[in-house]
Amino acid sequence: MSEERTRHHAEAVSAASCRAARDNAPRTALGGKVFSAERLLLARMMESLGNPPLDLVLWDGQAIASANSSPLAQVLIRDRGALLKLIANPELGFGEMYVAERIDVQGDLVDCLEAIYRSMRGAGHGQIAQKLLAPFNAPPRNTETRARRNIHHHYDIGNDFYKLWLDRDMVYTCAYFPDPAMALEQAQAAKLDYVCRKLRLAPGETVLETGCGWGALALHMGKHCGVTVKAYNISKEQIAFARARALAEGLEGRVEFIEDDYRNVDGEFDAFVSVGMLEHVGIDHYQSLGAVIDRSLKSGGRGLIHTIGRDRPSPMTPWIERNIFPGACPPSLSQMMQIFEPFGFSVLDVENLRLHYAKTLEHWLERYEANSGRVTQMFDAAFVRTWRLYLAGSLAAFRSGDMQLFQVCFNRSGHNDVPWTRQYLYAP
Amino acid sequence: MSEERTRHHAEAVSAASCRAARDNAPRTALGGKVFSAERLLLARMMESLGNPPLDLVLWDGQAIASANSSPLAQVLIRDRGALLKLIANPELGFGEMYVAERIDVQGDLVDCLEAIYRSMRGAGHGQIAQKLLAPFNAPPRNTETRARRNIHHHYDIGNDFYKLWLDRDMVYTCAYFPDPAMALEQAQAAKLDYVCRKLRLAPGETVLETGCGWGALALHMGKHCGVTVKAYNISKEQIAFARARALAEGLEGRVEFIEDDYRNVDGEFDAFVSVGMLEHVGIDHYQSLGAVIDRSLKSGGRGLIHTIGRDRPSPMTPWIERNIFPGACPPSLSQMMQIFEPFGFSVLDVENLRLHYAKTLEHWLERYEANSGRVTQMFDAAFVRTWRLYLAGSLAAFRSGDMQLFQVCFNRSGHNDVPWTRQYLYAP
Repeated sequence: MSEERTRHHAEAVSAASCRAARDNAPRTALGGKVFSAERLLLARMMESLGNPPLDLVLWDGQAIASANSSPLAQVLIRDRGALLKLIANPELGFGEMYVAERIDVQGDLVDCLEAIYRSMRGAGHGQIAQKLLAPFNAPPRNTETRARRNIHHHYDIGNDFYKLWLDRDMVYTCAYFPDPAMALEQAQAAKLDYVCRKLRLAPGETVLETGCGWGALALHMGKHCGVTVKAYNISKEQIAFARARALAEGLEGRVEFIEDDYRNVDGEFDAFVSVGMLEHVGIDHYQSLGAVIDRSLKSGGRGLIHTIGRDRPSPMTPWIERNIFPGACPPSLSQMMQIFEPFGFSVLDVENLRLHYAKTLEHWLERYEANSGRVTQMFDAAFVRTWRLYLAGSLAAFRSGDMQLFQVCFNRSGHNDVPWTRQYLYAP
Repeated sequence: MSEERTRHHAEAVSAASCRAARDNAPRTALGGKVFSAERLLLARMMESLGNPPLDLVLWDGQAIASANSSPLAQVLIRDRGALLKLIANPELGFGEMYVAERIDVQGDLVDCLEAIYRSMRGAGHGQIAQKLLAPFNAPPRNTETRARRNIHHHYDIGNDFYKLWLDRDMVYTCAYFPDPAMALEQAQAAKLDYVCRKLRLAPGETVLETGCGWGALALHMGKHCGVTVKAYNISKEQIAFARARALAEGLEGRVEFIEDDYRNVDGEFDAFVSVGMLEHVGIDHYQSLGAVIDRSLKSGGRGLIHTIGRDRPSPMTPWIERNIFPGACPPSLSQMMQIFEPFGFSVLDVENLRLHYAKTLEHWLERYEANSGRVTQMFDAAFVRTWRLYLAGSLAAFRSGDMQLFQVCFNRSGHNDVPWTRQYLYAP
């Protein structure tokens, strides 16, 4: 959704009175009379969330006005069961009830979620939740079997679905917008180019890519940088798609797609690259990943890891972990260093591209909404709402600073053939 | 020393035969006959150091040729006591005996030290030493009293001494060379400018600087960025110098120099900056430093920390810690994150400028050598050799990758007024 449209929504919502929202709430709800104890609990929950600027409207039409003077949106709670789920566990309950259409949002969904994230952080909710949930949020142990199941869950639901809202090259990671007004296709191409520049690839070199998605980066490197690429992925559908593309573009001699786990990587390479895989690796396995890089990189080798991250160690949002990305956990930088420090890799450059991911998600969400009819035909209404909430929630998380996007460049310690400055990255 | 001169030295050394070195070794040494057990121990020590490409020449003229075919330099060991000290504790013994002129280096000192650092790392010496020495290398507890003593030890030995080999503005931290051929004065000015660009200072803003040295950055910001600066330092001589400069340049209304510890900082600021102080803080105090930044930064505030660092957590070289920088310890990035993560600061950009510090040290060492006669007059021969070894050793450490230089930019989590890309840093 464009920034203008977002602003427009927010204004429309502010202008709308609670009465309008109340009119939309079903009068014939299952909930019956709202008890004053329920109102009290709801108010306490809102307080614990830091009082986000939202009005709550219950199934009987009662509104609980925001403690903030200018609410951004109305959250409609359509029955007593939804209310109780929300109070019991807001982080899981909101998503579950939203998908079931028992909670709805009047106004801009992204603004609503961003407001919730920001107020939760203001209330120190992240830290409290992190401590309370720590025993239940032990980092997932992503064995090879489990990793395969996790990846299958998300990436093998059908290439045709992803084609509806990704760019032409099917790049399902943060794009790079040298100009924020750039089209998504251009920005994804610019990202591939930016990653190659950061890797300083030279013709004739060999590259190892782990977690290659539908193969866009591997094919880009093979085509434009004159390198030979071995690209690993455990998603069956993505590998099949990537192989077909390599054949169609006559790149099968340069770019090999291998359906296997990063732990089984074989050979020695001049460069290592991984874009959007680390989120699925699990913190417990970072040292194994470091060992894989260590045994795969030649003496003068260098690498780049591009990943969603956090400002501090935090578990994955539980609704996302359960419904979208099982086994996933974006790292903080201190956690990420567990890949590099035990092996004495030298970190050369870290860039945080958080707002570029927000921009990327604006494009995806806009395309997704434009194709939501097709998605309903392919799946069902609950699926449409699940993915809407995931995309809107991710956009809100990058806008609010709940999520970061780190690109980390490194090389083997003590090698001095590094760029003298970063100026070359910005040369035309 | 310029790269050409260094290369020239190395070639000259390779060309020289062991015989030449032997001729230079004193025949009338204190050591008497060399026992074969001593030769054996020496060979074992060299092996444990990874066999650096150096010839060892003993006081009786015996040479122990490098296991490597082309030695870079000859290390002359002038008596039995020096030999035993070296064998017992090479990391401390080499420096102590070098300063006492009981060990000498024939050939380029920097090349010799770089070869030792590189071979030690190859032999995993850093990690082994780190584990063995862990109990003795507990991070120093830099209380305010101890910090003051530590800083006094190094920075209060006389401004006239530092004037002999620093640039005109007395900047005693890594310079930034957009062009490696740039003069030191230009490169230090470029560094001050680069730091200000990274901080995105706007006229009228307020800046907190901790560890301000002789005040060059604070004065630069006050003069060129239109900001008001409060700059802290616990070195008496540096503060006196900085205040005099502020007065002389008519900047005393904009730039206030305060002789106090960073822990006693007071007020709220738009930006925080610290260049070359973190090395002296001690890892145990990073969370206190984070708390100081947290209470000092306004809501939209941002900051930059510039520090010597490491690829992995490692204690300071013991000779340097004992003789040059008591209480100092350069952090790895994971250690540095202890400043930011507990307070949820968002790391925006990390740049490793290691080779720029090597280049800076080449300039300092060249100026230092050109003025070594003056230094002898000011102090004595042992002082000259101590500081020569420190400067040459630091240069070798940055060249070999034993030391890193990190510039870390951060802001408060969730603030979106960040530069869209880093291109603006490289615009003319």
